[in-house]
Amino acid sequence: MNIQIINGPNLNLLGVREKSIYGDTGFETYLKELQARYPDINITYYQSNVEGELINKLHEVGFSYDGIVMNAGAYTHTSVAIADAIAGINTPVVEVHISNVYKREEFRHQSMLARNCKGVIAGFGLDSYRLAVESLLAK
Amino acid sequence: MNIQIINGPNLNLLGVREKSIYGDTGFETYLKELQARYPDINITYYQSNVEGELINKLHEVGFSYDGIVMNAGAYTHTSVAIADAIAGINTPVVEVHISNVYKREEFRHQSMLARNCKGVIAGFGLDSYRLAVESLLAK
Amino acid sequence: MNIQIINGPNLNLLGVREKSIYGDTGFETYLKELQARYPDINITYYQSNVEGELINKLHEVGFSYDGIVMNAGAYTHTSVAIADAIAGINTPVVEVHISNVYKREEFRHQSMLARNCKGVIAGFGLDSYRLAVESLLAK
Amino acid sequence: MNIQIINGPNLNLLGVREKSIYGDTGFETYLKELQARYPDINITYYQSNVEGELINKLHEVGFSYDGIVMNAGAYTHTSVAIADAIAGINTPVVEVHISNVYKREEFRHQSMLARNCKGVIAGFGLDSYRLAVESLLAK
Amino acid sequence: MNIQIINGPNLNLLGVREKSIYGDTGFETYLKELQARYPDINITYYQSNVEGELINKLHEVGFSYDGIVMNAGAYTHTSVAIADAIAGINTPVVEVHISNVYKREEFRHQSMLARNCKGVIAGFGLDSYRLAVESLLAK
Amino acid sequence: MNIQIINGPNLNLLGVREKSIYGDTGFETYLKELQARYPDINITYYQSNVEGELINKLHEVGFSYDGIVMNAGAYTHTSVAIADAIAGINTPVVEVHISNVYKREEFRHQSMLARNCKGVIAGFGLDSYRLAVESLLAK
Amino acid sequence: MNIQIINGPNLNLLGVREKSIYGDTGFETYLKELQARYPDINITYYQSNVEGELINKLHEVGFSYDGIVMNAGAYTHTSVAIADAIAGINTPVVEVHISNVYKREEFRHQSMLARNCKGVIAGFGLDSYRLAVESLLAK
Amino acid sequence: MNIQIINGPNLNLLGVREKSIYGDTGFETYLKELQARYPDINITYYQSNVEGELINKLHEVGFSYDGIVMNAGAYTHTSVAIADAIAGINTPVVEVHISNVYKREEFRHQSMLARNCKGVIAGFGLDSYRLAVESLLAK
Amino acid sequence: MNIQIINGPNLNLLGVREKSIYGDTGFETYLKELQARYPDINITYYQSNVEGELINKLHEVGFSYDGIVMNAGAYTHTSVAIADAIAGINTPVVEVHISNVYKREEFRHQSMLARNCKGVIAGFGLDSYRLAVESLLAK
Amino acid sequence: MNIQIINGPNLNLLGVREKSIYGDTGFETYLKELQARYPDINITYYQSNVEGELINKLHEVGFSYDGIVMNAGAYTHTSVAIADAIAGINTPVVEVHISNVYKREEFRHQSMLARNCKGVIAGFGLDSYRLAVESLLAK
Amino acid sequence: MNIQIINGPNLNLLGVREKSIYGDTGFETYLKELQARYPDINITYYQSNVEGELINKLHEVGFSYDGIVMNAGAYTHTSVAIADAIAGINTPVVEVHISNVYKREEFRHQSMLARNCKGVIAGFGLDSYRLAVESLLAK
Amino acid sequence: MNIQIINGPNLNLLGVREKSIYGDTGFETYLKELQARYPDINITYYQSNVEGELINKLHEVGFSYDGIVMNAGAYTHTSVAIADAIAGINTPVVEVHISNVYKREEFRHQSMLARNCKGVIAGFGLDSYRLAVESLLAK
Repeated sequence: MNIQIINGPNLNLLGVREKSIYGDTGFETYLKELQARYPDINITYYQSNVEGELINKLHEVGFSYDGIVMNAGAYTHTSVAIADAIAGINTPVVEVHISNVYKREEFRHQSMLARNCKGVIAGFGLDSYRLAVESLLAK
Repeated sequence: MNIQIINGPNLNLLGVREKSIYGDTGFETYLKELQARYPDINITYYQSNVEGELINKLHEVGFSYDGIVMNAGAYTHTSVAIADAIAGINTPVVEVHISNVYKREEFRHQSMLARNCKGVIAGFGLDSYRLAVESLLAK
Repeated sequence: MNIQIINGPNLNLLGVREKSIYGDTGFETYLKELQARYPDINITYYQSNVEGELINKLHEVGFSYDGIVMNAGAYTHTSVAIADAIAGINTPVVEVHISNVYKREEFRHQSMLARNCKGVIAGFGLDSYRLAVESLLAK
Repeated sequence: MNIQIINGPNLNLLGVREKSIYGDTGFETYLKELQARYPDINITYYQSNVEGELINKLHEVGFSYDGIVMNAGAYTHTSVAIADAIAGINTPVVEVHISNVYKREEFRHQSMLARNCKGVIAGFGLDSYRLAVESLLAK
Repeated sequence: MNIQIINGPNLNLLGVREKSIYGDTGFETYLKELQARYPDINITYYQSNVEGELINKLHEVGFSYDGIVMNAGAYTHTSVAIADAIAGINTPVVEVHISNVYKREEFRHQSMLARNCKGVIAGFGLDSYRLAVESLLAK
Repeated sequence: MNIQIINGPNLNLLGVREKSIYGDTGFETYLKELQARYPDINITYYQSNVEGELINKLHEVGFSYDGIVMNAGAYTHTSVAIADAIAGINTPVVEVHISNVYKREEFRHQSMLARNCKGVIAGFGLDSYRLAVESLLAK
Repeated sequence: MNIQIINGPNLNLLGVREKSIYGDTGFETYLKELQARYPDINITYYQSNVEGELINKLHEVGFSYDGIVMNAGAYTHTSVAIADAIAGINTPVVEVHISNVYKREEFRHQSMLARNCKGVIAGFGLDSYRLAVESLLAK
Repeated sequence: MNIQIINGPNLNLLGVREKSIYGDTGFETYLKELQARYPDINITYYQSNVEGELINKLHEVGFSYDGIVMNAGAYTHTSVAIADAIAGINTPVVEVHISNVYKREEFRHQSMLARNCKGVIAGFGLDSYRLAVESLLAK
Repeated sequence: MNIQIINGPNLNLLGVREKSIYGDTGFETYLKELQARYPDINITYYQSNVEGELINKLHEVGFSYDGIVMNAGAYTHTSVAIADAIAGINTPVVEVHISNVYKREEFRHQSMLARNCKGVIAGFGLDSYRLAVESLLAK
Repeated sequence: MNIQIINGPNLNLLGVREKSIYGDTGFETYLKELQARYPDINITYYQSNVEGELINKLHEVGFSYDGIVMNAGAYTHTSVAIADAIAGINTPVVEVHISNVYKREEFRHQSMLARNCKGVIAGFGLDSYRLAVESLLAK
Repeated sequence: MNIQIINGPNLNLLGVREKSIYGDTGFETYLKELQARYPDINITYYQSNVEGELINKLHEVGFSYDGIVMNAGAYTHTSVAIADAIAGINTPVVEVHISNVYKREEFRHQSMLARNCKGVIAGFGLDSYRLAVESLLAK
Repeated sequence: MNIQIINGPNLNLLGVREKSIYGDTGFETYLKELQARYPDINITYYQSNVEGELINKLHEVGFSYDGIVMNAGAYTHTSVAIADAIAGINTPVVEVHISNVYKREEFRHQSMLARNCKGVIAGFGLDSYRLAVESLLAK
């Protein structure tokens, strides 16, 4: 089983920036734990700050992978283009957020992507990614 | 460990009404599976169609339980009173939805409760409840 | 043939409060006239000020009765939960209003329920209930 | 007793266009049934696609007839001029709709006319007209 | 000097309808007084309830007359088509209203026409028409 | 003289929840002080988390008591039904709030009830209740 | 092949009014060129300033012609009635505009008709009509 | 007969600032012409840039003068306080504007004052003041 | 103990204007009663129609007085500057209104000042001032 | 004559994704037909999912080519940056859409680009591109 | 070279009020530093809490000075009158703010004045004034 | 001292496009002047049309440089992602604009970035960059 994790803008700074919101673990460290926990699943990882490159990656894996776990960061709230990409592929996408976006600024309460995703998991810190993997296993 | 599941209005009709949206399993059936899966956890269940009774239940368990999994149904989108109840108790609450509410009417995209909850899990069918339990175990 | 009339909040004060808007006949008095006019139909009546109890009643009769005439009062304009209950049952519901709600405050012009009902009848005083019964007979 | 039925734009296509919404009976056919049902009432009929001609007709009958049953079609949602005409005459007007307009596009949920009418009846197919006649008889 | 007065929908009922708002003088009576007061000016009059016929009249006189006094009634607030007609002709148009529209419903506070007119005069009863004629003389 | 104090949702947690906003005195403790201060007045108290039960209480005392002091909590901002109940009874109602609601979230700035109440007193801690009693004595 | 061109309000002034926006060619002149260019197609032409007459024409040709090219002028932005007429007929309608409406006032950016049309062509001067004919040939 | 003209902020710059909008005649020059034209009327003049001083002047003359002609300039669009002052006095006030405010920025289309005035005259240059005087004579 | 009462625009007309809303007692008369009732408190009074002078007075007393009772009249709904002044001083300010502002026009429901005040008291006629003094004594 | 076709995000999936909306022809296949139809024109093609690269391409050809046919996909509705790029170049741009965007979600009805383009062609399937080329030839 | 600094409401409290936002230096102290830094420029200073007096000052210096540095405080967000004054004078005005207004309440994000100013400088503490002077020197 | 200037989309066309708004100097030319004026500061420059690459650059220099001067062009008004990047780094960012954005289209009045920046400087042509450098020196 193949699962692609895709992280959007500024998530490369995880563990570095705004630790009070995002915690102090870098994503690569967390990824190893996650891969260790699910040894039978092939979990690959991609991060980009460029909206169009996130779309490219969705196109690339979206017709062959079994699931995509996507934290599109700020693009969650503004990108019709990523929403269209998710609608255009076959692989189910689970939208995740590390922080509880509903506790933050008004504009973060709206997701352009959610209606095209399988579901949404938000607010559980890095554990949101594991729950998303769990949700895809249950499929 | 004590976890309370609270279901709001119309969820007593689960398995009966609108099966294309909610599936055909009644909640009690599902609950037994869930309890069986987590034998070490005390999972209790409450459902009411009355907003104020949901608040009463939150008050009742909200200072002693370890976690609450709440699907407030339609009240999710309108109830400041339930939101205040969640803010007023100590036990963390996880908001869950069976359907992907973001695929449905505009007014279902907004949650009055989410900002006071630990996190939100939506769209995974009845499996949303299991993922919520998982998220509380990880605490 | 079984028809359930359901009245929502404050309609127990009919004939007592705001007579310039609602007239001075109590609902029980009117009900007897209505029952007398349709001797072959079993017309039952329920009133509650509690949103959730109105939902309970809809669930109770909504899989066996032939028609429901509902004046949800103020909940008409705010209750997603009652709207969901109407969508979840099989019996057709006719929304009625005693006053012409469109002549009153802006917030009374919008009905949360109407889209899930068979139709709407508003503005004919207590005669709105008879017209609703008529509409169900024509079914 | 004289009752005028006034139909607005596109209702001349009844039974021809969008049958899934409006059914397949032409209005003239239905009118005969209605007249037969109320032999003691003089029910006259007028249809026009021109907003101003609907106003002319309201002026013409609005000081002598006992009731007007009006389905202003699309003008219901946009015409301040028809609303003013209704306010300016003496005959009570009942607003009717064949379809349940609240199930359709957002802009059909608002009526410019309703606040000047006696009441509103919507969603009962062609039977809406009969219910309107009934409501006028009860006057 | 030629001045055309154009009255829109329902103004044919002047002196008949809603006298508390519009007074009890019919327009033809007033027109004679006005013509008598300005014997050197050729004041012609047109009224229609049909939006498109008002446009036809604007086209007809709008390239040769010296001034147009227009009370478009309800179309003032909704008609882009009349606004375009005013913009398309050469004769200056003065918008008048009998009542003070700003004391009435919110939707009557906005004029679609005013930005294409020379000016606006509202609230002086039938005297608004004389003031408009005065304003055109001053040109 | 009979005065009824009615507290809405979550106010049973007073002194327990969110002490930084609401202080640490339970309402029963405060009530005793208040009753002691006004020995000649019969001050009764009711609290419920259920919207409809608050309406029931308003109906029960609203035709015989001399005054009602109501803190409807979260329902202040959402309940048309309670607003209608206040409009339907004879006893004057004073709306009170412990906290200065205008310092808090935007949705707490709007009261559905205030237009039907005698007046509003907000922001003085538990002393708001005494000021409301004072205002009723002055009647 | 039969194609009907329908022009709405003020388009009879083409070549006369606001030449900086619409150019200085009258529509009849242009029509002859267009007919000459497509000798095998029967291109007929209708213009009216009356909304309802435009609807009448749509009804008249809308069940037998092969295509309709419609520039509804100002009614584009306000007429639900024309939109309904287009939805009610069988012939495909192409919405055209001479000017680039998106460069003009905000209210011209929205078309009530477009969602019921085959497509939209705007901004190419009178050539917009030819492109619309082309689009219908390609059908 | 006593008529007070009141000019608001920046109108002291008339004839100096933005001549393309307001022309190049100072108000004092115009005032003399106006006084000469109506020798039997006592026309007094006041200008201030201070909102509260305009209110003071309204209070001062508003219980004894026969009419007030007021161009409140920018305060027209923002001042509830001046609107309240107009409502509080007995003398009728006519709102005037030199320019056609409806041709200018959106925020100038709304008047806070108009609903409390007798009427509105806008767009006729300095002649707006004469028309206002005329309207008061007709009283 | 020093308490400053500050009244804003048009409140100098109290007892003169709009008596149905504000009653027929002038403020000076009421002030004497109030001072007599609280002989131990130094209650001073200031009124101005000028927004900036109200700010000056707040600055003047706002670092030494024990409390300020402010009825900012119409400026309540529009003045960010007065709101900033209240935030900038040390003395607590109680916002009062004579009428129940929530029964009046929509724009009077919003207070720019309330979030910076200690609390709000509205709707009790002139008695609102006494209640405000009471609230400051309780401090 | 040089014409550049620029396709935005997800249009590389044409013929693969959402065939019910976009049809099943890949763009390269269509492009060959188009080039064959206009042998005298040099039609070049570029596609990218990256907003900034679309801007780069506009800059590259926008000072030398004779026309640009642009389908910016989802960026049509959100990109001020592409709109600015179109405004900054000399070559006229024609906005095209394959589907009738006005039949789809509300947010697709608004184009950020259209006001800077020569014109818009939407809804004719891949034939929209040919019509755009035609419109540029007519220039 | 003459430069006028104008400070609006509450800026006389600088160094006294809300030090966490505005710092603890009084403006007069800062002014001396600024004047010392630019010995060749005549920098004059004016402060008022009265909107109309700020307008008076703009009129007074606005036809002879070389530049105006204006911090209109709260009036920045509400005053059309000051905006008109700036538009009516010849001297360029630079809008400055001590705090970063975009970090504060929503209503402080909008400036009524900015569109009539040369430019805006906000967020640099008192150094904003120096930067404004610099910007005027560069002219 | 290290200062990075970052220019966003279309600013590579400076001196080429829309000269009436942006002037005719290319940025490289201006940069040399600026560097010459501050010989002790290391001023580096980066431009990209790709939103994500601007984020990359902010990440690259944002933990070591002393200041960033950023003109994000059109992304200023739409990019939550760049705003997040600014919040995530340590180096202070000054937002600059060449034109006075408040004089232009409504959507350019809002900045997504400003609340995360040190301050904003807009409207001074290319001199805005120098003023930004000045503001960073003053730090």
